[in-house]
Amino acid sequence: MVKQMMMMITTTNHQFKLAARPVGLPKPSDWDSTSEPVRDPGVGEVLVKVLYLSLDPAMRGWMNEGKSYIPPVKIGEVMRAGGAGRVIASNDPAFAVGDYVVGVFGVQEYATLHGKDLNKVDPRLAPLPVYLGALGMPGMTAYFGLLDIGQPQPGETVVVSGAAGAVGMVVGQIAKIKGCRVVGLAGGAEKCAFLTGELGFDAAIDYKSEELHVALKRECPKGIDIYFDNVGGDTLDACLAKLAMHGRIIICGAISQYNNTTAIKGPSNYLSLLVNRGRMQGMVVFDYADRYAVAVKELATWMKEGKLKSREDIVPGIETFPDTLLKLFRGENFGKLVLKVADDGV
Amino acid sequence: MVKQMMMMITTTNHQFKLAARPVGLPKPSDWDSTSEPVRDPGVGEVLVKVLYLSLDPAMRGWMNEGKSYIPPVKIGEVMRAGGAGRVIASNDPAFAVGDYVVGVFGVQEYATLHGKDLNKVDPRLAPLPVYLGALGMPGMTAYFGLLDIGQPQPGETVVVSGAAGAVGMVVGQIAKIKGCRVVGLAGGAEKCAFLTGELGFDAAIDYKSEELHVALKRECPKGIDIYFDNVGGDTLDACLAKLAMHGRIIICGAISQYNNTTAIKGPSNYLSLLVNRGRMQGMVVFDYADRYAVAVKELATWMKEGKLKSREDIVPGIETFPDTLLKLFRGENFGKLVLKVADDGV
Repeated sequence: MVKQMMMMITTTNHQFKLAARPVGLPKPSDWDSTSEPVRDPGVGEVLVKVLYLSLDPAMRGWMNEGKSYIPPVKIGEVMRAGGAGRVIASNDPAFAVGDYVVGVFGVQEYATLHGKDLNKVDPRLAPLPVYLGALGMPGMTAYFGLLDIGQPQPGETVVVSGAAGAVGMVVGQIAKIKGCRVVGLAGGAEKCAFLTGELGFDAAIDYKSEELHVALKRECPKGIDIYFDNVGGDTLDACLAKLAMHGRIIICGAISQYNNTTAIKGPSNYLSLLVNRGRMQGMVVFDYADRYAVAVKELATWMKEGKLKSREDIVPGIETFPDTLLKLFRGENFGKLVLKVADDGV
Repeated sequence: MVKQMMMMITTTNHQFKLAARPVGLPKPSDWDSTSEPVRDPGVGEVLVKVLYLSLDPAMRGWMNEGKSYIPPVKIGEVMRAGGAGRVIASNDPAFAVGDYVVGVFGVQEYATLHGKDLNKVDPRLAPLPVYLGALGMPGMTAYFGLLDIGQPQPGETVVVSGAAGAVGMVVGQIAKIKGCRVVGLAGGAEKCAFLTGELGFDAAIDYKSEELHVALKRECPKGIDIYFDNVGGDTLDACLAKLAMHGRIIICGAISQYNNTTAIKGPSNYLSLLVNRGRMQGMVVFDYADRYAVAVKELATWMKEGKLKSREDIVPGIETFPDTLLKLFRGENFGKLVLKVADDGV
């Protein structure tokens, strides 16, 4: 019965598989665009029609060989990606056809996976793409990174890079909620105007039009108490140079370095940690899984109260995946980058 | 009366003043060797005959211009240095002629300073040079850096660089007392044999004769839980690469970089902090001044129990100062480097 229903809906599943480990920026030949029959759900499995896929800087790391915080995607494997979709067949009593779910679906139109790897979401509370952004992994990353590791205090100065990206936007807004002075680093006047105008940041620095050292000196007269780093490279160094006494640096990502073909640029100013008794600490959001629910609840409340806004940059068409992914590394995305895979034609 | 007594003892005070800010390794022309009349102690002041001076890597930083954790030594000023000596005249009722004291005397034969800047020590409990090493600032640095910032747990692996230096030796021995596996990094077979033979380190790596990555892999099969960094540079990078989950790195110094004429080498492997949820934190010993007494008491107890050994590398003659200081940067000192200024001929 399940099988029959499924076969009526579709017979093929368009996918992107990793064809080669990229050197530098991923290029078209690093991907295999494939079509396979949809796999029927087995015992305890659920078949999901993928509607949206989350495109994240971390994906670049998953394409590399070698040990990291999760195993690399294998050559020939469907590229790993989180997504939101609709259940179209289920062998798990916890999920009914028509349920909306999020999970790690991979870059494909249909995902067959165990119910235990899915979470239900309610599209009446927030549009599906928001569950990939402010209420999804980026939101969790911002919430636990800033609050648990940064421990912001009212009146402190918080600087966040990639501030117009999925994580950065949420970091800045939570810091405002906590009573901090918030300075966002972003590329371009439009993004900067959005941060200060729409999101209430105290200041935004357009790193494309201004020398960062000069701008940080102006916007952070008392130094930087917390720097939430999404980019690494020279930006990390500039913030280290302005670190306040007992400053904290949250190492969340280093997008400026992910496509390096030479060694990663280490922070030359790291001895600022010594002079200022500073702390630089890394984080991986998965460690906080047992507290996601608490964070989602608080973030959703802030959204309802108008204190937290989300913004998504939605690009349609799974076939655009290889190129759309590059928007992240070119700094072109404005808000959470989401690939729209299908209309929700129920 | 005081004046008379002093003048009977000496009339001149041989000093080393900073003549120029060094570029790279300090050279003879960066110093002025001067002789001045000893300054009489004023109200509340004490005149100290300097017996020993502490030579420390941090002195190189004090010679540079620019903001750091303490102001730089000015050109024309007596070079800053801690020391141990004997009171030979006193206008402070808290100090009597014949008392042994430690303080920041500067590189000179006689120091005139306020009683409040002096601390009495007892040469019957430990020889004077020990008060510049294991029971002095290096001991305090090791104690608070390892225990407060590193927070070692029994069974953890602790790696310390500069392990045969004043701070490193104490770090390793405290880590042993706390039940850790201790691996010391030092230059030369003799130092390594001392660390494992005399001080009870579990392993010592001679970085001059072995590739550090290979040796760390062998000696730290479960990774590095705590790395106490005195040297920076490639050593810091090698330890980052072997960091265990939730590892801590204490940034105490970076002697490999102090004489750079180019930019400091930042740790290229700093993203290991992200992958391993690690923490890298700087420390300055002065922050713990209100707890020095507690630390000295515990360190002295360990010494009495034979659990903590000290070793000093004593070089005689204040006139050797410019060259003796360089032993630190050439990795030639074996134990706490101390300049002997005068015999204690009472």
